[in-house]
Amino acid sequence: MKSLARLLVGVATVFSFYSPAHAADLATKPALTLAVAKQIAAAAESEAVKNKWNVVIAIVDDGGHLLYFQRLDGAPMGSIDVALGKAQTAVKFQRPTKALEDTVTGGRMVLLAVPGVTPVQGGVPILHGGTIIGAVGVSGATSQQDEQIATAGINALPTILGK
Amino acid sequence: MKSLARLLVGVATVFSFYSPAHAADLATKPALTLAVAKQIAAAAESEAVKNKWNVVIAIVDDGGHLLYFQRLDGAPMGSIDVALGKAQTAVKFQRPTKALEDTVTGGRMVLLAVPGVTPVQGGVPILHGGTIIGAVGVSGATSQQDEQIATAGINALPTILGK
Amino acid sequence: MKSLARLLVGVATVFSFYSPAHAADLATKPALTLAVAKQIAAAAESEAVKNKWNVVIAIVDDGGHLLYFQRLDGAPMGSIDVALGKAQTAVKFQRPTKALEDTVTGGRMVLLAVPGVTPVQGGVPILHGGTIIGAVGVSGATSQQDEQIATAGINALPTILGK
Amino acid sequence: MKSLARLLVGVATVFSFYSPAHAADLATKPALTLAVAKQIAAAAESEAVKNKWNVVIAIVDDGGHLLYFQRLDGAPMGSIDVALGKAQTAVKFQRPTKALEDTVTGGRMVLLAVPGVTPVQGGVPILHGGTIIGAVGVSGATSQQDEQIATAGINALPTILGK
Repeated sequence: MKSLARLLVGVATVFSFYSPAHAADLATKPALTLAVAKQIAAAAESEAVKNKWNVVIAIVDDGGHLLYFQRLDGAPMGSIDVALGKAQTAVKFQRPTKALEDTVTGGRMVLLAVPGVTPVQGGVPILHGGTIIGAVGVSGATSQQDEQIATAGINALPTILGK
Repeated sequence: MKSLARLLVGVATVFSFYSPAHAADLATKPALTLAVAKQIAAAAESEAVKNKWNVVIAIVDDGGHLLYFQRLDGAPMGSIDVALGKAQTAVKFQRPTKALEDTVTGGRMVLLAVPGVTPVQGGVPILHGGTIIGAVGVSGATSQQDEQIATAGINALPTILGK
Repeated sequence: MKSLARLLVGVATVFSFYSPAHAADLATKPALTLAVAKQIAAAAESEAVKNKWNVVIAIVDDGGHLLYFQRLDGAPMGSIDVALGKAQTAVKFQRPTKALEDTVTGGRMVLLAVPGVTPVQGGVPILHGGTIIGAVGVSGATSQQDEQIATAGINALPTILGK
Repeated sequence: MKSLARLLVGVATVFSFYSPAHAADLATKPALTLAVAKQIAAAAESEAVKNKWNVVIAIVDDGGHLLYFQRLDGAPMGSIDVALGKAQTAVKFQRPTKALEDTVTGGRMVLLAVPGVTPVQGGVPILHGGTIIGAVGVSGATSQQDEQIATAGINALPTILGK
């Protein structure tokens, strides 16, 4: 069977140098727009302002690339990279960064050796129809409060989409 | 008119802390799969082997993240990062890397100061329906040959998709 | 009132261990707020949208730290770091990045070896009363267009502050 | 034949400037080819697909340099660097990365401070005749499952070479 397949490949190459094994399909995925990201950020900001928490709010797309960012007055400068890192980590590992923080706290210290990981609560993936379309990362308050702000932003998504 | 809007916002916040400015939509975009990437790489490899060019072939997705990679026997080790860098640069700047090389050659030396840019011919975006869904980066032969290999891979896409 | 305070300080130092060579004053500097940065960005965005230029707009404070950021739909991913780099460079060197690009183009290639410099037109300092309070960096269109967008944002400042 | 060559070399050194203290031999080492690496990866992929584990599979040569790479659909983006890091670490330290993870878990936290080490289970050296010829790194499932996939790939080597 295998040698027959090889023979056929040999014959095929007489006519064409490359013949695909079989037809394949591309995938289709939903994607964030700036307009949607701004409204997610506004909902997150509203939660932060209501509680007087001075934070950085970063929103990345499904590739982990920055889409929207705002630093509320009084937020620590150090929160700039942390908020972005949390958002990127949530996308890269397809889960809230709290899960990674819990993993480390639970004893899996080796995670600390992986570069480009911010395993700190406060980064939450944005899901749409089961697909991760980006993430919100927040830093500046306690990590629980940071996550609460990120979640408030994400929870506004159905309203934003009018669904 | 503006103060009326402000008043309404004031009233609205009595009932809800966040009310979106208006309903917004997500975008939808096609996405590479590993199966498609492998066939693009096979077509590129075929072109390289036919010409006895020992190269590295890297394929990244629309976020610039590595999806598929193969180093043909005899390809220079230095081509690993160059092939990946070309593919990422083609996605990041939405054009073949030859355009960036021409820009530098044409006198715009400042491009050399931008980090994360590999402005060397041999990286080509993969387009589908006008959308960039990834890129192929090739390194190891001359830059013209590298691009020829990448293009051979991308030109197989319609056949791969059965269209 | 001020001299009374100084007098009291003078009296106090009779009893204190450290007495400075002479009384000194701290400086006062105007500083961007997020609210002002958002309005500068909105004016810049308006200029970009009017011309159908898909760009990244980044605003940094007087320390070069990111304050506000938005990536318009369709803007190249590569523009994320470039826009931020332009804004930071404009603050770091206290001039529009065009001046640095002209320096390189004029033959001073050594600037390309200085780390953390993006000597590409499109970064413009935000001045208030002769003081640099931050900068706007734009990337995604031609560099002239990028600068035009950044300038449109900055030119809105008097109107923003006059409200 | 070999001793004749040595004799000629010996004669030649009478006239040459440099004469070594004693005749020395180069070593010979077995080396991975892309064809073999692809089949190792195919065996690993088969194990992953059978278990519906979406992972990244990276194969490096004896210098730790990337030879072959594939990211299965649905694998986390964060696994790209982790899979590569595991493969490189297995080659660099001549052992499965599980041994390094056990070292850290056992209290040797200082390993976390060594740059370029990914001490996380899932990287396994490829041995041939007692020599390390490369490594497989897998990431995306649990670390035990990652290692199971890598091992399945490596276990196919005798069959691959027996063809």
